[in-house]
Formats: sequence, structure tokens, C-alpha cells
Amino acid sequence: MNYPVVGRTFRLGILGGGQLGRMLVQAAIPYDVELVVMDPQKRCPAAEVCHDFVQGSFALKEDVLSFAKGLDAITVEIENVSIEALEELEAQGVTVHPSSAVLKTIRDKGLQKQFFQKHKIATLPFHLVANREELLSRVERGEIAVPFVQKTRTGGYDGQGVQVIFEKSHIGKAFDTPSVIEPLCDIAQEISVIVARGVDGATATYDPIEMVFDPEANLIDYLIYPAPISDHLSKQCIALAESAAEALGIVGILAVELFVEKDGTLWINEVAPRPHNSGHQTIEASMTSQYEQHLRCVLELPLGDVDIKQPSMMLNLVADGSGVFKIEGLREVLALPGVKVHLYGKHECRPNRKMGHVTIMHKDHIKALETVERIRSTLRITV
Amino acid sequence: MNYPVVGRTFRLGILGGGQLGRMLVQAAIPYDVELVVMDPQKRCPAAEVCHDFVQGSFALKEDVLSFAKGLDAITVEIENVSIEALEELEAQGVTVHPSSAVLKTIRDKGLQKQFFQKHKIATLPFHLVANREELLSRVERGEIAVPFVQKTRTGGYDGQGVQVIFEKSHIGKAFDTPSVIEPLCDIAQEISVIVARGVDGATATYDPIEMVFDPEANLIDYLIYPAPISDHLSKQCIALAESAAEALGIVGILAVELFVEKDGTLWINEVAPRPHNSGHQTIEASMTSQYEQHLRCVLELPLGDVDIKQPSMMLNLVADGSGVFKIEGLREVLALPGVKVHLYGKHECRPNRKMGHVTIMHKDHIKALETVERIRSTLRITV
Repeated sequence: MNYPVVGRTFRLGILGGGQLGRMLVQAAIPYDVELVVMDPQKRCPAAEVCHDFVQGSFALKEDVLSFAKGLDAITVEIENVSIEALEELEAQGVTVHPSSAVLKTIRDKGLQKQFFQKHKIATLPFHLVANREELLSRVERGEIAVPFVQKTRTGGYDGQGVQVIFEKSHIGKAFDTPSVIEPLCDIAQEISVIVARGVDGATATYDPIEMVFDPEANLIDYLIYPAPISDHLSKQCIALAESAAEALGIVGILAVELFVEKDGTLWINEVAPRPHNSGHQTIEASMTSQYEQHLRCVLELPLGDVDIKQPSMMLNLVADGSGVFKIEGLREVLALPGVKVHLYGKHECRPNRKMGHVTIMHKDHIKALETVERIRSTLRITV
Repeated sequence: MNYPVVGRTFRLGILGGGQLGRMLVQAAIPYDVELVVMDPQKRCPAAEVCHDFVQGSFALKEDVLSFAKGLDAITVEIENVSIEALEELEAQGVTVHPSSAVLKTIRDKGLQKQFFQKHKIATLPFHLVANREELLSRVERGEIAVPFVQKTRTGGYDGQGVQVIFEKSHIGKAFDTPSVIEPLCDIAQEISVIVARGVDGATATYDPIEMVFDPEANLIDYLIYPAPISDHLSKQCIALAESAAEALGIVGILAVELFVEKDGTLWINEVAPRPHNSGHQTIEASMTSQYEQHLRCVLELPLGDVDIKQPSMMLNLVADGSGVFKIEGLREVLALPGVKVHLYGKHECRPNRKMGHVTIMHKDHIKALETVERIRSTLRITV
């Protein structure tokens, strides 16, 4: 790896230009790396702040190959990219982190589940179905029990592509697409563990984070960092997450979402091979943010330390309408101590679109929860 | 003030595109503000990362007036700007923070000293001289005692434009330009206090910072934050700095450099109306960085809190040669816990040019000093 380059600036390409890309660009400024972004939307969040922007489809082989010209390395901020293109680039000797093989396994939730099963990494039992008809007939034959959770194998994001079917009579609402079917289990907590793994195999793992979901939108509502769990459970979560990163051999950030059942059983729900919504608070709250850490992995630099500077919570800012929006309550929220607002620069809102987030640093958990509630009732993205 | 603007992005112009502008751009990303930079150098540090760049001279009235078109507000990262242009823009109703009046007073060290004298703000006694000839004759007449410190009234930066004349026989080396002459005093410590003042007159003041200078380059070598001084002295420093910000009526950051004499007497050395080299460590070490704080002032938002997250030190990275450079020891330094390297993206080095800085967060002052020494001997910008 050739960073830093003498006499010119290192050029790193990011496939995808959403908020994760935007925060990666921000983290790269002190490294003097030029971030070049490709996204189909020319007004995407990262386009506004990156060094160079290329409009194109990260899912199209030819677009990715053409994007890669003149870049020193490539990474992603989304999984749904052209694996074929990345394989070809790797064969040419281009640095791609995470690798095409890791992305191929992770971006298909069916392959991801099979991978965990093969590597004896605890994940809920599952069935793969090709379409609604197969699902229906396997339910009829008693192979698949109702209720169940259906997840589309590919293309799901931000709570899209996941639903619970509670009754047999509702099976007509099932997605008619290749899916993973899992039993509905009795979840006590959802935990995220963010692991960074370097090119030398070294790992640095952030303390577990509790994700509190909005049950309607199926989006993270807010986060608690570090998660209020026992040391024993924390260690179990970290060990499980690290085993996944190790088995995958990922270079970069792996965000590992875990279910904790009421009886304490731990399962990997799913993983993401990139900075993750559950790690936004690391910008202010950790010695090294997940964005800086991902960059260190991609540049093949030593990992940064992941000690907590400040316990914190993180609240997603989602819109409640469609179109051109206004931000209400910003001034009041900016006046609160320990509160950092991040706006993503999106030009239009849609219901449940993530428009920004707020990090709340604190010394007192109860007061921080009150601040979260206060921000929720004050700061609104509205049309 | 019209931030945020519904339906489009707020555009803030910065006069000057050095590292201070670069870090201001970085801080503005979460605010969704477009930063537009003007600088004579098209490859300046902020040009690489800002939204739009305009090549031009911030000291030329017509360049500044043309730059201002379509901007919602204007700020500076350097003092040496066209005051006339800013006066004209203010008269047109354009938001300019800090104001032309503040900049006019501060950028001329003679006017600055007269201002402090008039407002009874403790500063060393001084003489103003128009040129070397006047200096010489006033020394001859015994009005000015040798040794003395000579500072050019305008245009000094990074240790340029300041010198000590120790002996009468060396007076031929004096700058032949309008200057401030001060007695050489017995300085025990140099302290910086960074004050932010909002448009409503509210202030937020960071804990005092000790600046340890490189005596040869007359540049900050490293910083200690918070300064290892008594509570009593700390309060005196803060009070003196706030009195200067209040008297000036500045909106934005005022960095106040103070001399502490061996007998404890405190003087204002000079002030800067912008983020300052002595505040770089606030990026990691404070709840609100000086860059975010300056932006809050300029956008007329409530000030952020300035609590310390982590005690820290800051080491300037200066070059030891001229031309295209390489960075030695980066990998080793990045592996140190609590250490953050900031590179400014300069394309060529010159002796004593500031090429970056390193923040060292710590819990142990002595170990942190050892880390500073280790970084100094490891990380080198060299041709």
C-alpha cells in the first residue's frame, strides 16, 4: 500500500454517496486523502463534500470499472455494488477493502446466514425461499412455522425488506422474492458491536452499543453507548462479533447486529461490511471514530484505539413528510450542552428518510434519556 | 440571520484558504453549510476540501466584492483582508463576522496596542515607529531602551515580522517598516485564551492553554491544554481575555495571547480574530472545537459548551527543507494510542512551514510529554 504518496495526493474511491460516505469524507480530511465518490444521485450527501464526484451506478460493472481508473484504492459505503467489477479490479492488483469475496457473502442475506452456519457462528435457524409461492407451500407442508420474520436476500435497507408475518392468513402480504425466513424470537435487547479489522489481521472492537428500534419504521430510534449490559454479556457479544470478522477475513469495519433473547441467548442477526448507523456516536464519543477507523483499515494503517471518551446516546433524525423540508427547533437543540447535530445535506425528505442524527454526550444516563426525549419533541424535519 | 435556509444550502465565504480554513470546512460539514473559499493560491489547503473555490486576493477590494456575490455570510481565517470591501458589504447589509471594525483594529498591531491602552486592558508599554530611521533616532535620544522587541505593525505571521534587538550595535538589522516597539520582559509562560463571543454578546471561554515556543523559529512548538497554572492565574487570564473580546465587541473566536512575567504580572501580547494555532487540540479535546464554535458565531447560533473531554497536548509539524516532501514515521505515530495526526494537504514544504499538527490526548501529563518527544523524533516532514 502506497499511502502517503510523495508529490501527489492519495485518491480513494467510495462506491455510494450517502451519509456514511459523507462522514467518511469528513474523517479523511486530516489524512490528506482525496475522496472520490460514485453514486447515481448527483446531489447525494457525499457529493457535496467530496473531492471529485462521478455520477454512475455502483451496481453496474462498466460504471465501477470506469470509476476505478486513476484511483489508489476503493471502498464502499453500501453493499449492493458490482461484485464482478471488484473481482476484476482485484485481479488487476487494485486495492479493494473490504474485498469482493466479503461483499459477495454479506450482501446476500441467504449467503450470509449459510456462512455463519458453516462457521458455527451463532445465528437463528433459517429457511431460504425463492419466492412467495415456495414460502406458501412450505408453510402449508408445515416446514415453516407461523409467525416468522421474512427478510429479502438482497436490496433491503433502512427497515425496507424486512417484515413479520404473524398469521397464516396474512401470507399473501409476504415479499415475492428470494428471502430468508427466521422464527420470531423473544428479543430482550438488540446490540451492535463494531469491529475493525486491519490488513494484518489485528482487530479493534468498540464497546457494545444498545440499539433501541422504532417498531413502526423498523429503524434505529436511538442508541446507548456503551450498552447497559453486564460485563459478562459484553464480553460474549464482543467475542461473537470478532469471530464473525475473523471468519470473514474482512479488512475494514464490520458492524455486527446481535439479538439478545430474554433467556440470555445471543444470536448474530446480520452484519454490515462498512461504517454503520449504530456507530455514528463514535465521532464524538470514541478516541477513533468508526469513519477514521474504516479509513485506517482501507489505507492499511495501524488501527486507532477505541476507548470511550464520553458515554453517549445517538438519536436518528427522520423526516415526517415528503419534499422540500424545514428544520424546526435547531437553535434550541444546539444550545443544549454536550449535544452535536449532524445534518446530512439531503435536498428532499421522505417519510422515515434519515436526514441527520444527534449525539448526546453525558455523564448521567437518566438525564441523557431526558435530553433524548427533549430533542425528539423539539427538533423536527418537516415539510 | 437566515440559517438554515429552506430549499437550498447556506453559503458561507471564507477569506483565506490555509489550514484554519481547511479545518473550518471540516467543522461545517455537519451543519450542511457550503463553504466557499477565496485565496490567491489555487492549491491552498482549504481549496482541496471546500465546496467552491475562487482564486483571488482577499486583500484586494474588487476581488472581495466579487467573491461576496451570492454568499449568505462572510468570515475570515486571516486578518490581512480588504477592510474597505468588508465595510462596503456591511453597508449593503451582508453579514460579516468578525466585523470590518474589529479586523481593522486587530490587523494593525499599532492600532491593537492603542485600543488596549485606551480600554485599560493590560498590555506592555510600547512605542510606534514609522521606520528604521525613526527607531534609530529615538534610541539615540534615549526614548527607546535596548534591548527591545520589534513587531511589524502589519503582515507578520508564523513568527515572521517579530524580532528582538539585544544590542544597540545590531539596530541596523531592525525592520525598516512601521513597527511596535516593546520592552523585552522576563516571561515565565505564554498562555493563550480562546474566547468565543456570539452576536448576542454571550461568551464561551476555553480553559487557558500553555504555548511552548520554539525559540529559533518563534513558532508554537507544542501546547499544553489545560495550562498547568493555578486556578487563580487561570481566572485572571480568562478575565483579561474576556475583557478584550468584550471591548472589541467581536462576533467569532478571539484568540488572546498572554505573557505571564516571572513576578506573576499578566499582559496581553496580541490577539487574533479567528481560530488560532493554539486551539487546534479543541477538535478532539473539547466538547466544541474552536472551528465549530467560530462557525456557530458566524451563523449566529447559540455557542457550544467548551468543557474539556480529554487533557491534551498539541505539536506543530514543521518542515525542515523546501520543495516536494515525504512524511517519515507516520505509521509509527498513528499506532500510538490517543494520538491524532492532522495533515494540511500542502503541496510543497519550506523551512518552518506548518505542514500539520498532532494532538496527544492523555490522562498523564508526564507520559504525554514523553509521547510529544517521541513523536518529535519519529514524525518528520522532510525533502
